[in-house]
Amino acid sequence: MSRPEGEAGSRGLIGYNVDLSGGDGRARCWLDVAEAHANRRGILHGGIATTLLDTAMGSTAGLVPGEARSTPVSTVSLTIQFLAPGRVGTRLTATGNVTGGGRSLKFVEGELRDEEGTLIASATGVFKSMTRDA
Amino acid sequence: MSRPEGEAGSRGLIGYNVDLSGGDGRARCWLDVAEAHANRRGILHGGIATTLLDTAMGSTAGLVPGEARSTPVSTVSLTIQFLAPGRVGTRLTATGNVTGGGRSLKFVEGELRDEEGTLIASATGVFKSMTRDA
Amino acid sequence: MSRPEGEAGSRGLIGYNVDLSGGDGRARCWLDVAEAHANRRGILHGGIATTLLDTAMGSTAGLVPGEARSTPVSTVSLTIQFLAPGRVGTRLTATGNVTGGGRSLKFVEGELRDEEGTLIASATGVFKSMTRDA
Amino acid sequence: MSRPEGEAGSRGLIGYNVDLSGGDGRARCWLDVAEAHANRRGILHGGIATTLLDTAMGSTAGLVPGEARSTPVSTVSLTIQFLAPGRVGTRLTATGNVTGGGRSLKFVEGELRDEEGTLIASATGVFKSMTRDA
Repeated sequence: MSRPEGEAGSRGLIGYNVDLSGGDGRARCWLDVAEAHANRRGILHGGIATTLLDTAMGSTAGLVPGEARSTPVSTVSLTIQFLAPGRVGTRLTATGNVTGGGRSLKFVEGELRDEEGTLIASATGVFKSMTRDA
Repeated sequence: MSRPEGEAGSRGLIGYNVDLSGGDGRARCWLDVAEAHANRRGILHGGIATTLLDTAMGSTAGLVPGEARSTPVSTVSLTIQFLAPGRVGTRLTATGNVTGGGRSLKFVEGELRDEEGTLIASATGVFKSMTRDA
Repeated sequence: MSRPEGEAGSRGLIGYNVDLSGGDGRARCWLDVAEAHANRRGILHGGIATTLLDTAMGSTAGLVPGEARSTPVSTVSLTIQFLAPGRVGTRLTATGNVTGGGRSLKFVEGELRDEEGTLIASATGVFKSMTRDA
Repeated sequence: MSRPEGEAGSRGLIGYNVDLSGGDGRARCWLDVAEAHANRRGILHGGIATTLLDTAMGSTAGLVPGEARSTPVSTVSLTIQFLAPGRVGTRLTATGNVTGGGRSLKFVEGELRDEEGTLIASATGVFKSMTRDA
């Protein structure tokens, strides 16, 4: 578990963790879901679920091959499907996977699963490299 | 500015505010953006932007006509486009608007703007009423 | 009603028309819906609705200011919401509108409406200019 | 390769084929791409790509377990990512896969690939059963 310089303020606020050490081209972002992450129906707020997915997917888009670090990217667009409720008291992990794109734009899919492997939410997104003008 | 019973834990954590008092069929959700809401590039995290949009759009979907309250709904799917960076130190407001649907499913669009009216992010989503089985 | 060189084969097949003459920064694409455009439930196929929206939105993204022509763009991603059935025997018009972006990437929204103004489908998408490498 | 009653007009117009015989819970829709399916840049029109994906995904959503037939569904929303150009002269096949949902709403993902397995476009969508009111 490592992390590039440039700590996100949102990470401290929400309490998620980023794992770039997989070595499989996929970054992960996990959270132990607490009451503070719940919506008024008592389950994981869709915005928090999106935070985990966006973080894992963006970190995946920026992964430097062969290294456990990720260069910053910006999210262009993101679509999330909410398949099952995220429960307070469970650990949820979002994983990113690059499906296509080139140097500037990357297509990334993401999955948010609990420890039993249940799919809580899935996402697809377009991410843009910040290292060249696009 | 009012709020139905069933406070969201995420509201306390993130510090957003929900406004159901518009009387125009549109719920609003606003946040004074602080460092704690920023990503590692120092601008509003896409997941926090989505939290504001999802909250405004879901609250709009559940608005009870003629009353400043909203019944709970669940987010089925959500697409967000990130048009401009959300700056620390600004107040951003997300506004929802129902574009179609029936009793069970509602189509809602949302806009996240700063105080100058700059469009920071826009979204479309599908929301499901929790008051009947769908 | 004008049209840049480079006729689309799909235009002849499906029978839609492109209108770049609005002078309002919005390209339009219309179709008189026939049985050949229907799905097996007898209403406009979602893919044909998307063809109209994608064409209007892409043509809008490529519009040359002050001229009734559009340079080619490529569609990066597209989200469509299907709000009401498109009926055989009606004329449907898709209209594009740029909501943001820069030289390379453009954010565009689109609406597909019938002659009474009923919203049949709405869309948001990301389009990429082909005139510079992105 | 079989097909339920209720032939789609769009199938005759565009010339795609539906295959419900996989026995793997996934419907397929394939097309031999011709000039008539191209946009003005000479590659597969995004709307036609969407037609194939929507057809495969909707047919997958409606598949009757153990039978090579599909009951009609309606598309609620659809997001498509365009990863690579679809070439004239190739055969492209869209395949659907249900990722979640219940009796009324189904979440479906789709992939459009050429004969070498190259991913041309991917999609996620929400589909609604027509057999009960939702």
